Amino acid sequence: MSDFKAQALKYHAEPKPGKISIEISKPAETVRDLALAYSPGVAEPVRCIAEDPNDVYKYTAKGNLVAVISNGSAILGLGNLGPMASKPVMEGKALLFKRFANLDSIDIEVSHRTTEEFINTVANIADTFGGINLEDIKAPECFEIEKELIKRCNIPVFHDDQHGTAIVTAAGMLNALEIQGKDISKATIVCMGAGAAAIACMELLIKCGAKREYIYMLDTKGVIHTRRDDLNEYKKLFANNTDKRTLEDALEGADVFVGVSGPDVLPPEALKLMADKPVIFACSNPDPEIKPELAHATRSDIIMATGRSDYPNQVNNVLCFPFIFRGALDVRAREINDEMKIAAVEAIRSIAKEPVPEAVLKAADVAALEFGPEYIIPKPMDPRLLERVSKAVSDAAIASGVARI
Amino acid sequence: MSDFKAQALKYHAEPKPGKISIEISKPAETVRDLALAYSPGVAEPVRCIAEDPNDVYKYTAKGNLVAVISNGSAILGLGNLGPMASKPVMEGKALLFKRFANLDSIDIEVSHRTTEEFINTVANIADTFGGINLEDIKAPECFEIEKELIKRCNIPVFHDDQHGTAIVTAAGMLNALEIQGKDISKATIVCMGAGAAAIACMELLIKCGAKREYIYMLDTKGVIHTRRDDLNEYKKLFANNTDKRTLEDALEGADVFVGVSGPDVLPPEALKLMADKPVIFACSNPDPEIKPELAHATRSDIIMATGRSDYPNQVNNVLCFPFIFRGALDVRAREINDEMKIAAVEAIRSIAKEPVPEAVLKAADVAALEFGPEYIIPKPMDPRLLERVSKAVSDAAIASGVARI
Repeated sequence: MSDFKAQALKYHAEPKPGKISIEISKPAETVRDLALAYSPGVAEPVRCIAEDPNDVYKYTAKGNLVAVISNGSAILGLGNLGPMASKPVMEGKALLFKRFANLDSIDIEVSHRTTEEFINTVANIADTFGGINLEDIKAPECFEIEKELIKRCNIPVFHDDQHGTAIVTAAGMLNALEIQGKDISKATIVCMGAGAAAIACMELLIKCGAKREYIYMLDTKGVIHTRRDDLNEYKKLFANNTDKRTLEDALEGADVFVGVSGPDVLPPEALKLMADKPVIFACSNPDPEIKPELAHATRSDIIMATGRSDYPNQVNNVLCFPFIFRGALDVRAREINDEMKIAAVEAIRSIAKEPVPEAVLKAADVAALEFGPEYIIPKPMDPRLLERVSKAVSDAAIASGVARI
Repeated sequence: MSDFKAQALKYHAEPKPGKISIEISKPAETVRDLALAYSPGVAEPVRCIAEDPNDVYKYTAKGNLVAVISNGSAILGLGNLGPMASKPVMEGKALLFKRFANLDSIDIEVSHRTTEEFINTVANIADTFGGINLEDIKAPECFEIEKELIKRCNIPVFHDDQHGTAIVTAAGMLNALEIQGKDISKATIVCMGAGAAAIACMELLIKCGAKREYIYMLDTKGVIHTRRDDLNEYKKLFANNTDKRTLEDALEGADVFVGVSGPDVLPPEALKLMADKPVIFACSNPDPEIKPELAHATRSDIIMATGRSDYPNQVNNVLCFPFIFRGALDVRAREINDEMKIAAVEAIRSIAKEPVPEAVLKAADVAALEFGPEYIIPKPMDPRLLERVSKAVSDAAIASGVARI
């Protein structure tokens, strides 16, 4: 076992197992304290909430509580290992919610037979929480699950693997296109991968101005086109009326490559087929669709992003999910709608264009960061994200009529 | 609104809503910390758990995590107010788990249509937790719910309103009978009330030596007897082949009165009908079946317990539930069986017979406490409970073969 792996296990196991704990947030020492916290004092908030359900936000932890819910069907790059094995990831996500946005967050692992049963289970416990972050649920079930839960819950439900990825990708992409002098509405976009993240990324880019007819999405069978008869309803939305069939066909003259697929699927020869000044997002983790060294050696006019922290331009969901929930919960939003997602994109973009605080440079261990090909999106440790992205999301919730305070 | 009620609301609302928070228990400052806590480090514990599910106890918070789960169908004495209104109570219970036994505990409020749906929902999320405390679920549904969940979950599932109450009642009752010089196997017991707590108390007293045929249980229609045709399957177990019909009939010569019903249902005249040296547990809260002042004025040979903290001998579930879960989780017990419950009874009993630590006297604001009519069970703030009851429960789990470490 590598040293890092051993350290990761030790980190999780010692001095006690796990990464989160539940603590008392009010005085609980004396008999009097406990009489207020429990019987008989607790009867009073109970009566208030029974009369006005909104009082639950006044007297309980609900309003700051985000559930991280998974069935473990698509854990990181590891696949379908089931709910129990997903627990360290979900606890880790809960840790990130706290670390970055001071949200109380608890993981819930769900066993189920049918998709309907998963939906029912989550909907039945939703009253407990202020928001629900769905995580590591495989496609295509994740689409129906999210759609149904949004309908049935009156709190924000957000599948981060889809929309978190999409928001950060869109923020970086719009900045990269700006630097390359390209207009998104005219850009040809090749999307390698047709899973949950791929589809969400393309849908959001379309909402940001990309044209559906200029998008070529590829699954394991090649370009998704109108004459294929093996497409689920989600892929069908990206069926392009085209003769292009292979990755090389699609890349010919393309402006953008988005990889959410697997390692080393973008050969340097194919990269050469793209238009001038292309943008390459190779987000497969830990091994990108093309190694940055190889891509840059192949051509010098690219802007490149990956999912890795050890290269410039890391597409990292942590730039978004803590803050979109913070913003949504701050105004008790009923849902996280497109207006709020696009507000998050714009807020993340704008931070990258401003001078970087000293603390961020220090945390990232770099001497300088300036908006340009090597710095299109903020660093995860940037403290401006909390204030700016959350505020933008809250404002958008209010403006679009889904805020409740 | 009374001053106390206003203070209770303020306690719940300020400086922030609720009584519990979720905190990070591992270093999470640096990029390196986060690489261990989340991607890529988290992949290692995931792989371990996928290989050996027991490793979930080694690398996650599961083993110390108790869910407090309710549907709000029987909230305190307030009735069926639904899941949302139950949240302050469930959070309060979570606070008590932490305060008394250092267990991480989170409340889960469940909405559902059928009993089956409640069971499925809880069973589906059970992997998340180390144990499940069911709370404030009305009878008779609570019996089926607990029975099914015990079958389906491989972690302890414990309906505290039943068994916590029963254990503390049994501990106090056995001590009271000892002081009164009575043998439980010969005692006539009148149980006013036939709900979840009543049935659980009587079943546990039977396991501690009481005879079913000497028990008279009463519901709103009077004595439960073999010629009644309106009994559910749980009450039927207590149908007595008797001509007694009223509370007065039942109390004639009885040794024990257990009230888990409502205020002032035991008139002093009825109390006079009981045998010499009776034991009166008037547990209705906040107003007992007979006021202690009235009971003691009526006859001087009684030992009396109530649910209230402002009289001697408080039957308080907090004497049991934190420690029975602590003991069960410490040895990763598959369930909480009768052996563990009886071990808890005996441990609680034994503490009451020993000299009381100074700190306990101070917390209870009394000069002295000595085993006798006014002190049959320990005080809730007694620090010996954690060590002694938990240890007894762990030992019983090991001896009875349900421990897994």
